[in-house]
Amino acid sequence: MTKHKRTVFYVSDRTGITAETLGHSLLTQFDGIEWEKINVPFLDDIAKAHRLVERINHAAKLDGYRPLVFSTLLKPDILEVIRQANCRVYDFFETFISSIEEELHQPFVRIAGRSHGLQYHLKYFKRIAAINYVLAHDDGVNPKNFTEADIILVGVSRTGKTPTCLYLALQYGIAAANYPLTQDDMPKMQLPKILEPIKDKLFGLTLSASQLHLIRQERRPNSQYAALTQCQREIQWQESLFQLFDIPYLDTTNISIEEISATILDRRGLKRQLYG
Amino acid sequence: MTKHKRTVFYVSDRTGITAETLGHSLLTQFDGIEWEKINVPFLDDIAKAHRLVERINHAAKLDGYRPLVFSTLLKPDILEVIRQANCRVYDFFETFISSIEEELHQPFVRIAGRSHGLQYHLKYFKRIAAINYVLAHDDGVNPKNFTEADIILVGVSRTGKTPTCLYLALQYGIAAANYPLTQDDMPKMQLPKILEPIKDKLFGLTLSASQLHLIRQERRPNSQYAALTQCQREIQWQESLFQLFDIPYLDTTNISIEEISATILDRRGLKRQLYG
Repeated sequence: MTKHKRTVFYVSDRTGITAETLGHSLLTQFDGIEWEKINVPFLDDIAKAHRLVERINHAAKLDGYRPLVFSTLLKPDILEVIRQANCRVYDFFETFISSIEEELHQPFVRIAGRSHGLQYHLKYFKRIAAINYVLAHDDGVNPKNFTEADIILVGVSRTGKTPTCLYLALQYGIAAANYPLTQDDMPKMQLPKILEPIKDKLFGLTLSASQLHLIRQERRPNSQYAALTQCQREIQWQESLFQLFDIPYLDTTNISIEEISATILDRRGLKRQLYG
Repeated sequence: MTKHKRTVFYVSDRTGITAETLGHSLLTQFDGIEWEKINVPFLDDIAKAHRLVERINHAAKLDGYRPLVFSTLLKPDILEVIRQANCRVYDFFETFISSIEEELHQPFVRIAGRSHGLQYHLKYFKRIAAINYVLAHDDGVNPKNFTEADIILVGVSRTGKTPTCLYLALQYGIAAANYPLTQDDMPKMQLPKILEPIKDKLFGLTLSASQLHLIRQERRPNSQYAALTQCQREIQWQESLFQLFDIPYLDTTNISIEEISATILDRRGLKRQLYG
């Protein structure tokens, strides 16, 4: 099936992150369309709204289909202007808010930026502290401080430990350390000594040997380190180790950093606190 | 006004990030309620759904109010079970999908994990490359590679350069470098030499002197570095520098990393590509 092109606009008073996240999760449920995605954050006055109407109408003409507009606009007058364009508008607040007002028996405050803005400031220190913790405890550095970690990811090189730690810190304020399993550990079926007292914080990351091979090839092409047989040996060894020491672990071959992070928090019973 | 407590459940077949984003952005529009937030990711069988019904009913009894449930469940039979609980369900797909089906003239695929899952795998390399770029070019390291950056954040110590770079990489796959402005640069109104040829990629971060003072106090209490007068001098100097050299900059005093990042992309005309 050849794909046809359509345009989607993510429109917001503020960052547009919510509009984009929600629209994206709906549109990924439809195949066969190539979406041109246009972010329109900080749409906060009528003049800008009129310029957007022109852009939307232009896209409609080019595509031969009217664009979709996902909106989290809080100002009804701006939303009214957008509705004059040749498009289909899905507004998240309008859709849900009156039924939530009814449920909570109170009106909503209609203040933009509440979900990503001001009140997060209060959590700024915790979040920054978590990021600093990750940067100071990446790749097995400063293991004497590992007792302060919320979670410690373990795995052989290039299993995604660092990106996952950073995501956990940025998105959830989790102090995540990571410790690499290396060739030197392989002859014996033992955990590195330094990890034994903190075994309960460990979580293993694994993936298919062929995927690990691809990732390592990017880093050091045609090295012994990247060889498929080497990757197979390391993956088999680490998975046996995880099983032997009863360390929970996750195969990340086909899942994103978001899913890896959510799974780790769920399996380790860590409280999720959304920042983003 | 004293706050009353209510419970909200974020329920999903997969990570629950979309359900949480939606619910969070709606509930922050209501004051006076203290929300107990419960994430229920990976709700993928009927037995789990029945256990959740018990949890919901228990919370309803404790709170004296029925809980809210924000859901992105794709399996109608599981959603049906949840609806038997004493709660108000807001299901994201149910609410929007049929009207989008109608607009696109095609049915949705009803496959869980589309928004955070599989297809992100294809972008994995770009995202990881961006993170590696940030880690290798933090705090002015390796400036000879700055020509490869999508953006270079500048500012005095503790203006949020590193967390913002990490967020730009993780969330948007942007290769972001950062370069600290230091005491040594202050006597003269000049950009550090190394930044001159790449002036067009610079973006300044600033904040109120009193906020900078607070942040630096956390790091080195009662130091000259953290003194309010020192913070005032550095902030005044860097803002004059940004103006003199026509470097766009942002006051981050009251905004979150999400808003800082979205603003930078918008002002620098960088394409946003959502990963999370």
